[in-house]
Amino acid sequence: MNSARLKGAVRVVGAGLLGTSIGLALTKLGIEVSIEDASPANQKLAIDYGAGRPAKAGEKPELVVVCVPPDVTAKVVAQELAMFPGAVVTDVASVKQSVLQELEEAGADLTRYVGSHPMAGRERGGAISGRADLFLSRPWVISPNGHNSSRTIQLVENLALDLGAAPVTVPAAEHDRAVALVSHVPQLISSLLAARLVEAEGSDVALAGQGLRDTTRIAASDPKLWMQILGANAKPVAAVLRDFADDLQKLVSALDDLDAPGALATVGRTLESGNLGVERIPGKHGGKHTEYAPLIVMIEDRPGELGRLFNEVGEIGVNIEELKLEHSPSAQVGLVELYVMPAVIDKLSAELIERGWRIAG
Amino acid sequence: MNSARLKGAVRVVGAGLLGTSIGLALTKLGIEVSIEDASPANQKLAIDYGAGRPAKAGEKPELVVVCVPPDVTAKVVAQELAMFPGAVVTDVASVKQSVLQELEEAGADLTRYVGSHPMAGRERGGAISGRADLFLSRPWVISPNGHNSSRTIQLVENLALDLGAAPVTVPAAEHDRAVALVSHVPQLISSLLAARLVEAEGSDVALAGQGLRDTTRIAASDPKLWMQILGANAKPVAAVLRDFADDLQKLVSALDDLDAPGALATVGRTLESGNLGVERIPGKHGGKHTEYAPLIVMIEDRPGELGRLFNEVGEIGVNIEELKLEHSPSAQVGLVELYVMPAVIDKLSAELIERGWRIAG
Repeated sequence: MNSARLKGAVRVVGAGLLGTSIGLALTKLGIEVSIEDASPANQKLAIDYGAGRPAKAGEKPELVVVCVPPDVTAKVVAQELAMFPGAVVTDVASVKQSVLQELEEAGADLTRYVGSHPMAGRERGGAISGRADLFLSRPWVISPNGHNSSRTIQLVENLALDLGAAPVTVPAAEHDRAVALVSHVPQLISSLLAARLVEAEGSDVALAGQGLRDTTRIAASDPKLWMQILGANAKPVAAVLRDFADDLQKLVSALDDLDAPGALATVGRTLESGNLGVERIPGKHGGKHTEYAPLIVMIEDRPGELGRLFNEVGEIGVNIEELKLEHSPSAQVGLVELYVMPAVIDKLSAELIERGWRIAG
Repeated sequence: MNSARLKGAVRVVGAGLLGTSIGLALTKLGIEVSIEDASPANQKLAIDYGAGRPAKAGEKPELVVVCVPPDVTAKVVAQELAMFPGAVVTDVASVKQSVLQELEEAGADLTRYVGSHPMAGRERGGAISGRADLFLSRPWVISPNGHNSSRTIQLVENLALDLGAAPVTVPAAEHDRAVALVSHVPQLISSLLAARLVEAEGSDVALAGQGLRDTTRIAASDPKLWMQILGANAKPVAAVLRDFADDLQKLVSALDDLDAPGALATVGRTLESGNLGVERIPGKHGGKHTEYAPLIVMIEDRPGELGRLFNEVGEIGVNIEELKLEHSPSAQVGLVELYVMPAVIDKLSAELIERGWRIAG
């Protein structure tokens, strides 16, 4: 017996980033996991990583987790429902409404299907990027469909809880509208912004700073996966983009003639609304935007320096909440930005200076 | 005498983030710096920080650096040119063409004025955020105006070099076009994207992930400063936004009817162009996008753990190129993402595991 909430065997279908990560985490908890993939090479890799054992004939999983690309998710879920009549089946596709509709149309047994979507991922995909802690503290959307028993829903919630995620119940259509806003539209806007650089002068792009890097980071994401996601959620995404385009059009008109009545107010409102919007995004810790106090320390760019620094921060007794490392290649100097609770910043700064560290500013 | 390239006295006008940072850095190099601000409180703060001494009557600076808000830059530059007929005057405003035009119209002595723009900044402004290392390894645009002698230009280049920046010569109009693309448009797009969240359901925004956080980070910037920048560079910004709006319009039409001929290709092209655009952005080290190899280590969330980890990484002899710290509050566990040269990742991983560290994945 294991200490996890899930007790029965789990079957994972699809050995990509999510399937492998789920298999790794459940296996570590002592749950019996079998993992299968259409590609024998992927499957072997995931098994080598410790994400489960190969599926065998006659197995009777309590729960099947379908982790295949969005466009084949409904088909595979239907197969699994038919193949394992005693099992609850869930999936992890980033769109929920289209999967449910396809299953309805195929006449699948919806009592045993509960869609879900862990809000976790990485820029890199594949079994090789799998991590047992991928879901730690992340929201895990569960979308019951009206035919589910509470036991069925509970099983999928237990999966999320066992993986360290925070289950949250959201109906399929509402989920798709929400991710259009917080995930799919930001992806496309980032892609459109980065696309402006393709034909730009190299000397122009050379002036790029951190703002451009941050706003375009996700534009490096995998187009194949995103084609599938957008294909399955086109209408909600288009709706948000249309509102964005309206705002953009007003802004361009304002910039074209800043002396026109209301033009400056339009630009100002855009910037102010941006401020307000950012404030609505929950911080890393799930609560409000936490404001840690920053302290910038200059260190020599060589092995051991960070160790020496963090050792001494530990001796001083201060916990580092966040940190960033910046290089200054020409100077052979690194800048470490430490973020700590505001109440301890003065103490930390004073004690580090006393110990001979160079504090910037 | 000091070891810096600049030898004569420097006068800094404006004790905000940039003026204070310049004053701090030059003072540390042993250069005689006076610093002045329209606000006595700002000036006193900057002087207390070590950014220079108060201006005195009869001083004869070799170089005047005007660090005031963009909308008053030209006026202050003109005053300084008149007040110090022996000095070269530069400014650090983020727009260059409008400043130059205003000075031309005012009949200022353009032989002694060279515009410049350090590509550095922080989300927080004010003297209190000043840092002597703010400009380290950052591009510093210098925009000669055709009337300058090479000695005059050299003096401003020396300023950039003394501050650790990389001077790059770009004519004013070209500069404004470049920063519209790499700085001003990303700012507005980020603001427009964050603005979509203002009226959104709290439960929708709760599903936000790192992608939304990254794309909207700069939307938290100061609207007052940005109103001035955009007011002085409206036409180049509007031009880029218009191209963006055209692409966006095509994308929305495609998403409205994905079965129409060419619709999928339009979506695909958007995503692919995003990939290509990101690849054009130089990496932190000024060269190509460097791909470091990541290693994720789980540590207890308490003082001293980071120190212990980095000490041992130092003992192993591996240099950490970049790092990220993630919290998992509920679990009292932190995830440290170490980025190292790909050649040493296997060694580092094996030795850390041997020493008892938990490597994720």
